[in-house]
Amino acid sequence: MRKVTWGAAVSLDLYIAGADEAIDWLAWSDDVTQIIKQSWKGVDTMLMGRKTWEFAARSGGAGPGPSKLRTCIFSSTMTEAPAGAELVREDAAGFVRALKASQGGDVIVMGGGELATSLIEAGLVDEIGLNVHPVLLGQGIPFFRPMARRVALTLVEARAIAEECVLLRYRLA
Amino acid sequence: MRKVTWGAAVSLDLYIAGADEAIDWLAWSDDVTQIIKQSWKGVDTMLMGRKTWEFAARSGGAGPGPSKLRTCIFSSTMTEAPAGAELVREDAAGFVRALKASQGGDVIVMGGGELATSLIEAGLVDEIGLNVHPVLLGQGIPFFRPMARRVALTLVEARAIAEECVLLRYRLA
Repeated sequence: MRKVTWGAAVSLDLYIAGADEAIDWLAWSDDVTQIIKQSWKGVDTMLMGRKTWEFAARSGGAGPGPSKLRTCIFSSTMTEAPAGAELVREDAAGFVRALKASQGGDVIVMGGGELATSLIEAGLVDEIGLNVHPVLLGQGIPFFRPMARRVALTLVEARAIAEECVLLRYRLA
Repeated sequence: MRKVTWGAAVSLDLYIAGADEAIDWLAWSDDVTQIIKQSWKGVDTMLMGRKTWEFAARSGGAGPGPSKLRTCIFSSTMTEAPAGAELVREDAAGFVRALKASQGGDVIVMGGGELATSLIEAGLVDEIGLNVHPVLLGQGIPFFRPMARRVALTLVEARAIAEECVLLRYRLA
């Protein structure tokens, strides 16, 4: 079964971007480089919702990934796939369930919680990784969204890294 | 200046209680005993909002603290102070600003973020402590509330403790 990981850099109050989509609080370090390198090892598929895609495009960070990376954008309103990506208009949980059961490498879910929370509720996310930054943003784009059910976690890793950030990794039950 | 600390046990999605005020997910351990003992060292005043007070009363955990502990309940709707506590009906920030400047021990703010967030916005909280539990509650009483401004933090401590919990402590700028 292909592993599905959801991860992001967040503020302590769990925003992935502040007011006006601010990401100027993000701290880069050698630790982050190592963690990201490790996270992408064995990954061949990247999933994200439309809003995350558009945010990345606005921030100049979007575009086709490495040629062997499959990128799937989930949206019920987009009509055409962005260059280098696939558009998934069907039910996200159904798509990811089939994806996990198919042959291939691991899967990363990017961005805020609208897509990821629905996948967690459906029991399709295997791991969550947070890089908690030392700031309260107060408002912005939340990482987690409300869910109808409780989900037990297993702590995999918790450690301070450079720039006063804290890496938290959990496996989902 | 008296130090003001705000702390709580939270789920990874930062709820201090789940649906229907559930707190059955809270894990106790010798580590927690030690951390709480350390947190209360030198504290002689406890602050909480009305909702936290009522929640504690419903949960059977309210009541006068140790006789030398001053307990202040903040509310604009309560008309009478609960036994063993003081009722503060005036502006919370003004009250706490004067409290900090007065002689005495340290101060702990209990409960959810309605009171604490207003104090953070006013620059009156010196330290935040979180005991992050390995669970996503999905809904409930949030720890942080939206704030109008960003607050920089300094990481004091980040370590895994018993029961797969993670202790995070920050100083506020």
